[in-house]
Amino acid sequence: MRKSIATVSVSGSLTEKLAAIAHAGFDGVEIFENDLLTCPLSPQEVRLRAADLGVSIDLYQPFRDFEAVPADLLARNLRRAERKFEVMERLGVTQLLVCSNISPDAVDDDELAAEHLRLLGERAAEHGIRVAYEALAWGRHVNDYLHAWRIVRMADHPHLGTCLDSFHILSRGSDPGGIEAIPADRIFFLQLADAPLLAMDVLQWSRHYRCFPGQGDFDVAGLVAHVLRAGYTGPLSLEVFNDVFRQADADRTAVDAMRSLITLEESVAHRLGQAPPIPRPVIPTGFAFAELATPDTARLSELLTALGFLRTGTHPGKPVELWEQGDARILLNTGGDGPELAAIGLESPDPAGSVERAQSLLAPVLPRRRAPEEAPLDAVAAPDGTPLFFCRTAQPDHPSWTDDFGPKGPVTGDITHIDHVALTQPWHHFDEASLFYSSVLGLRRHESLELADPYGLLRSRAVTSPDGAIRVALNITHIGPQPSRPDLPYQHVALASQDIVATARRLRTLGDLLLPIPANYYDDLEARYQVEPTIRDLGLLYDRDEYGEFLHVYTVAVGRVFFEIVQRSGGYQGYGASNAPIRLAVQHAGAARHALHP
Amino acid sequence: MRKSIATVSVSGSLTEKLAAIAHAGFDGVEIFENDLLTCPLSPQEVRLRAADLGVSIDLYQPFRDFEAVPADLLARNLRRAERKFEVMERLGVTQLLVCSNISPDAVDDDELAAEHLRLLGERAAEHGIRVAYEALAWGRHVNDYLHAWRIVRMADHPHLGTCLDSFHILSRGSDPGGIEAIPADRIFFLQLADAPLLAMDVLQWSRHYRCFPGQGDFDVAGLVAHVLRAGYTGPLSLEVFNDVFRQADADRTAVDAMRSLITLEESVAHRLGQAPPIPRPVIPTGFAFAELATPDTARLSELLTALGFLRTGTHPGKPVELWEQGDARILLNTGGDGPELAAIGLESPDPAGSVERAQSLLAPVLPRRRAPEEAPLDAVAAPDGTPLFFCRTAQPDHPSWTDDFGPKGPVTGDITHIDHVALTQPWHHFDEASLFYSSVLGLRRHESLELADPYGLLRSRAVTSPDGAIRVALNITHIGPQPSRPDLPYQHVALASQDIVATARRLRTLGDLLLPIPANYYDDLEARYQVEPTIRDLGLLYDRDEYGEFLHVYTVAVGRVFFEIVQRSGGYQGYGASNAPIRLAVQHAGAARHALHP
Repeated sequence: MRKSIATVSVSGSLTEKLAAIAHAGFDGVEIFENDLLTCPLSPQEVRLRAADLGVSIDLYQPFRDFEAVPADLLARNLRRAERKFEVMERLGVTQLLVCSNISPDAVDDDELAAEHLRLLGERAAEHGIRVAYEALAWGRHVNDYLHAWRIVRMADHPHLGTCLDSFHILSRGSDPGGIEAIPADRIFFLQLADAPLLAMDVLQWSRHYRCFPGQGDFDVAGLVAHVLRAGYTGPLSLEVFNDVFRQADADRTAVDAMRSLITLEESVAHRLGQAPPIPRPVIPTGFAFAELATPDTARLSELLTALGFLRTGTHPGKPVELWEQGDARILLNTGGDGPELAAIGLESPDPAGSVERAQSLLAPVLPRRRAPEEAPLDAVAAPDGTPLFFCRTAQPDHPSWTDDFGPKGPVTGDITHIDHVALTQPWHHFDEASLFYSSVLGLRRHESLELADPYGLLRSRAVTSPDGAIRVALNITHIGPQPSRPDLPYQHVALASQDIVATARRLRTLGDLLLPIPANYYDDLEARYQVEPTIRDLGLLYDRDEYGEFLHVYTVAVGRVFFEIVQRSGGYQGYGASNAPIRLAVQHAGAARHALHP
Repeated sequence: MRKSIATVSVSGSLTEKLAAIAHAGFDGVEIFENDLLTCPLSPQEVRLRAADLGVSIDLYQPFRDFEAVPADLLARNLRRAERKFEVMERLGVTQLLVCSNISPDAVDDDELAAEHLRLLGERAAEHGIRVAYEALAWGRHVNDYLHAWRIVRMADHPHLGTCLDSFHILSRGSDPGGIEAIPADRIFFLQLADAPLLAMDVLQWSRHYRCFPGQGDFDVAGLVAHVLRAGYTGPLSLEVFNDVFRQADADRTAVDAMRSLITLEESVAHRLGQAPPIPRPVIPTGFAFAELATPDTARLSELLTALGFLRTGTHPGKPVELWEQGDARILLNTGGDGPELAAIGLESPDPAGSVERAQSLLAPVLPRRRAPEEAPLDAVAAPDGTPLFFCRTAQPDHPSWTDDFGPKGPVTGDITHIDHVALTQPWHHFDEASLFYSSVLGLRRHESLELADPYGLLRSRAVTSPDGAIRVALNITHIGPQPSRPDLPYQHVALASQDIVATARRLRTLGDLLLPIPANYYDDLEARYQVEPTIRDLGLLYDRDEYGEFLHVYTVAVGRVFFEIVQRSGGYQGYGASNAPIRLAVQHAGAARHALHP
């Protein structure tokens, strides 16, 4: 299907927006009027620019407060419309969006509204223009899409149709099933936006919190399926008002938008029982490795040794060590900056398929740089730049990346595997990141949580595979300038222990390797739950949910990196979020002490 | 009255919070439990720290989900309470806040709630502790303050009373008049917060958008007057959950909080017909001058000359020139950095009184540095550091600062006076700034507006004197990283012209001194209004409100400073906000061009 986007959805000047939109592969644009008003180019010049870029101008929007008004105002509104038709002719666009009237001058009279819209359709027809009438969710008298459609039907003019907008329909909780009863040739346009479910004024919700489909909580795919069943063949067009996208880089936002539309198209095909437009996701079955880069391995080696890891190999051609315990594998790379989490290895049933999927969703594929004797490693870059490698570890059907490190026996200990990794994202790419992981890897997005930091707030959202073998916690921090912050935000690797008491005891014995937890935490914990004294004695943290229990503990940080050791029991699904404020406070205090006494 | 604040209202570790709170002059604190849990000090150590700092611990909070539960849960809740009483004894605090139950386990049974709370009161009494029961606005069965009071009355125990919270009462639209019927000795505590009026989920509103009294839209003073009429003699205690304060500097937030409470006390005294606790505001009657600092005067001199200003004097002892036209006076200071708006002179009927008022509200008074022969100039620093000078210009009762510049005749021209100044604030001090201007200078806060910037959003709020002689537009920008942004955000001086057509014509004739306005703007303006062709020809901007019309135009910027020329007619009250997106887009485009071809 044709893919369009409203210029309001990305940042910048109109020419910057058009370039970013074209670059991301969109077929068309809706020109948001304010973007034209602030533009030094004439409408003719904008038309040429769009043509040069290969994007068609599909819609001019919005025209407001037109219909169902007293006679003198109607005359003024028709004059205003004539001026806009002239601008549209210069722009070379043949569809105008008219929003339902929100002005106090509007009369609650459907026949009058239909009469006026018919008049507008007649005038538009003289310019070869079609008018698409849309019910705003906060329209004064018309706020429901079926109401707008009844008025359009009553007006009965070939140049008048309706525009459907997923936000206006789904934010009101309307049943989109009614769309199927609207004749296809009367649906002139389809605007799409998602949004998180927020209990707030719908106008503010719409203006600030819309997001791309797949980033919010609406069933946009379900709505599109109804529109396609009605016979609509026009473009799928994104119209998103979002405070974060307004500030973000236009090129990235346009790619994020395109990824959203492709994923949406796939979901819709699934609903309609059609062939998917892109290769199916290859869901990873576990973590192959986490790669930590550091110019100085001493501190991380000490931590890994204390955790029970053994260095089982060294790469013949790169400054990379392999450390293993159970199925947990850590690569220590001394070739880069850091300390930082430099890459993640994912077990893929089909590495080539993983890459094809990622490519079809505009993920940057990283070049395979390897010596002839090395195992191939396919990789793409996540939105924060972290390379994701698709691996087959020690499987007969595929060369294993571990072969590069030579033969080795199994290393057994308390630690069995990587439970999750936590990646702090640049703050304007949080929604982009969660859509990337869910669409490219086929992971499930979980609820977004807010956690208190002593100097701000942290937002966190997990994406996981259905069986929990892959868990990634995506975080963003809203924290004021503090000397106790690392220059770059924390990233961490959480290791699953089958005996966290033993792991923690060993780490306590070996020195100050675990984050000290305040005694006040245990006073509160023991007031709330009946817990073993070991928890306080070893400085473990505790959480529970409806399924089970969670014990965890954090190591001290090395630069921006630290380890967490976790033990899940009884099907606990979370990440100990209620304890995160304790960790953050202790980390800040430790970093501040370190800043004072380095 | 005693003044307290909850530790959750400022950022940092508990010890940092206590220090900031003590430093701002608060008498007491409420310890927010999470701040204790994350603190490495024991409760006894916290008690000593607070005592050393001279602040009493007035309340421990919150204790949740206690009352009206099944028997087994009651036993667990009582055990939990006993543990908290022990902590409170170690902290040396004798009041516990209990919030109305929000858990699904809670039963809708006032008698059961009263029975349980009576039991809690009895247990508390054994520890010398009093329990203050508060209705959360989102309590499961108890969400109204009178309902909470009825349960307290029913429970009838001397160690059980009620806690009133302005947010929980006013967010629900409850009538606070009923407070006067509660016996004074049953009101154990009073928590205060303001909030902007937002149509949203009350829990989210409370957790993220509370602000200090005078920064929001609630009538907090009216509520406090009712509480005092009821006979309450306890502390006025601020409890504010605010995403911005969480990230801001604790010392500044604590001073902002104290300024809010002092201003609140004054408003309450006014309501109760009592003597005000601080000197009355001295409302400025106009702008005496705007001081622009620049290392190189050439570009600003050119602009001022083009605008019709004359250089009427030079300071004998400082590198400062006085430029005048009508009652508009600009000081050009070549001694500092810049170009920037370095200071504002305000006409004060009583400069000494202005300073006394400012001092009583913790505004930093700036030292009077002057040579013996110079006129004294009293000044305080606004939150963004801008010095505000209190002047009496050419009045017989006071030495005039203009005398330093020697004798001069009147300069007449189109420009008559400074209409307003626009100051961009650091983003975490927007509410602080508007409270500062309203409380210290006695100005009125107007509605907060949101304006679209091509790379983000701008928030703007005007503060004005009742007669409009003083107008200050406070702005904050939420804009992504852009090469077209100046290093520091824009500030500007708006000059009133009595003939803006003549002023603009002169500036157009003299060269590229005015910001070029896109032709598309005029196509739209002419579609909406019948306007004179002069407006398009001269590149003027136009706005109207219910009172009148507004014509304005912007000069090009010199560094981060520019001038606006405005002409108000028919009592227009605004600032042409609808045209600000045009200005911002053109400024970005110009700055980007400048960055490419410097």
